[in-house]
Amino acid sequence: MSELRYCPIKNRWAIIAPERRLRPLEFLVPESARSAPSPELDPFAPGNEDLTTAEIFSLPALDSRSGSPWQVRVFANRFPALRVEGDVVREGVGLNDSVSGVGAHEVIVECPETNREMADFTVNELVEVLKAWRARIEDLRRDQRLRYVLIFKNSGTEAGASVDHAHSQLIATPIIPSVVAQELKSAREHFKSKERCLFCDLIHQEIELGDRIAIETNSFVALAPYASAMPFETWILPRRHGHDFAATDDADLRGLAVILSDLLRRIRCLLEDPPYNLVLHTSPNPHPRPGHPDDWSTIQYDFHWHLELVPRISRRAGFEWGSGYTINPTAPEEAARHLQKADPDGGKNSKLGR
Amino acid sequence: MSELRYCPIKNRWAIIAPERRLRPLEFLVPESARSAPSPELDPFAPGNEDLTTAEIFSLPALDSRSGSPWQVRVFANRFPALRVEGDVVREGVGLNDSVSGVGAHEVIVECPETNREMADFTVNELVEVLKAWRARIEDLRRDQRLRYVLIFKNSGTEAGASVDHAHSQLIATPIIPSVVAQELKSAREHFKSKERCLFCDLIHQEIELGDRIAIETNSFVALAPYASAMPFETWILPRRHGHDFAATDDADLRGLAVILSDLLRRIRCLLEDPPYNLVLHTSPNPHPRPGHPDDWSTIQYDFHWHLELVPRISRRAGFEWGSGYTINPTAPEEAARHLQKADPDGGKNSKLGR
Repeated sequence: MSELRYCPIKNRWAIIAPERRLRPLEFLVPESARSAPSPELDPFAPGNEDLTTAEIFSLPALDSRSGSPWQVRVFANRFPALRVEGDVVREGVGLNDSVSGVGAHEVIVECPETNREMADFTVNELVEVLKAWRARIEDLRRDQRLRYVLIFKNSGTEAGASVDHAHSQLIATPIIPSVVAQELKSAREHFKSKERCLFCDLIHQEIELGDRIAIETNSFVALAPYASAMPFETWILPRRHGHDFAATDDADLRGLAVILSDLLRRIRCLLEDPPYNLVLHTSPNPHPRPGHPDDWSTIQYDFHWHLELVPRISRRAGFEWGSGYTINPTAPEEAARHLQKADPDGGKNSKLGR
Repeated sequence: MSELRYCPIKNRWAIIAPERRLRPLEFLVPESARSAPSPELDPFAPGNEDLTTAEIFSLPALDSRSGSPWQVRVFANRFPALRVEGDVVREGVGLNDSVSGVGAHEVIVECPETNREMADFTVNELVEVLKAWRARIEDLRRDQRLRYVLIFKNSGTEAGASVDHAHSQLIATPIIPSVVAQELKSAREHFKSKERCLFCDLIHQEIELGDRIAIETNSFVALAPYASAMPFETWILPRRHGHDFAATDDADLRGLAVILSDLLRRIRCLLEDPPYNLVLHTSPNPHPRPGHPDDWSTIQYDFHWHLELVPRISRRAGFEWGSGYTINPTAPEEAARHLQKADPDGGKNSKLGR
């Protein structure tokens, strides 16, 4: 069974998950070798459902002529980082801390077709994916052992994908991930001193300045953050304050699908179909602990849910590893300018003429 | 000029460095394309000194028959992330913070020969590299604008190296890198409550347990940390407490060279010559600020300098990016066991029989 381990020097958690390996020395094998048994075989295609673990959730096909019973299909990852069975045991181990690897690790297949990417989806198709995300968060929140549900997408081998068929993943954890905990803390401190949402303030500032805005719609904004860690890092934020992605209605999801589709197509055109990671940031599971008024679950209202997209076109090296800083050769103002001008219908070829 | 930018949401700094790019759209080009103009031309070889910027420091050749005047040679990076010219300007920009990109970015060529890796070096040769590191830290500390000198090595393209010739790099920054700041903070808090060094306590605990120790010598220990973020992450720590790498004597450096050489050769044999990053962690520059008794420069004595090595055999994907956690499929106890048994003289081929 896997285990979450805390380093008291780095203030950092790692999930030690030997079950993620096929063989003892699998760490020597490139990630790409972990894909389907044969390149012709798509384990996520309709008809191959017996190649995956049991279905947890699905949404019916939008087009019945597709031959697939489902549009979106969710099941447990075959090589899970965390497992749903067992109690959460928290214990000190000398100077260190350990938490048992209880959680969930699910795969969300995003469409029936083998050769379509999220950037190819119609808005209707993308809305179905977002609905599946929302439904899985709602369901897993009922589990009192789990503190957070993290949804993310790895697109392309360089971004960590091991199966080509379009899919996202979900990992639910018994502790709040440090990136989210830091965002919650920042939002809490800002609200305490100003009684305003930090993210709402940021959105207002950026819209006023304008030079880091990539796309603006009535209900959402896509912007290149001031301290972008990587070239073309882009956040999509709802203009209206809301801490919880699971509390969105279908109109919210439609608005999100419109701007996400636009952004993905611009990125694909501009950067020649780059690998990328997409991460949903939402509030933690609302499980208050008696006597802990400042617990994460009670400060969730200060949060502002959003999506973060990072094309994987630069590499973390020793400096990034040793400092915690990143070196980003593309100013966010420049990235936003390119994105504003990019053609969302330009396909995979850069229109910037290199 | 580049700029350090702070994100108030993520509590994170990024160095926005457009000067690192050769062309406006260079972010589309793989890192490997940035190496020498022609594969035959080694810009770091003796005789090609005019292909680099001016020499800042060098140590004479150990073997005069090599035909090279120098053994180790240091110069400014041609594509610097930070520059030595100018004042450090710190300013608020709306919700954000900016610090001008003043600092140093140097290349340390580690040997005259084109086709030798650090794992090939004799102990004497490795000592010269460590002496150069020490000398550069001592020199740059005199600059009151700089708070930290970070020395790191990227070995192999996958680890971020753009030139094959063995070299390390140095980046000196006007703020303390967050990874080091966190380590200092952890060490400070531990000392405050226990009047003992956190790292010394860790070393004692790990030697007593034994199951995460890779190599032990009279003066150093190489161990796989309990919450290893990546497979075969290894730290080399001096057994005797010392906060400052620059305060080491030549005997210390020799002891370090012995265990580092041993570790590099075991890693090379075990993991088939993997790309890796090596980072020196030492105390910040001792520039006290009047009226700031808890400033980093005064709490440096709680630190314990050490080296961290991370083979780059796994990939950061969306989960790692979104959570701040890492998923490590190799337990450190297992990594240590493999390293104990590995043959330091086994060359590049794994002796584990795959």
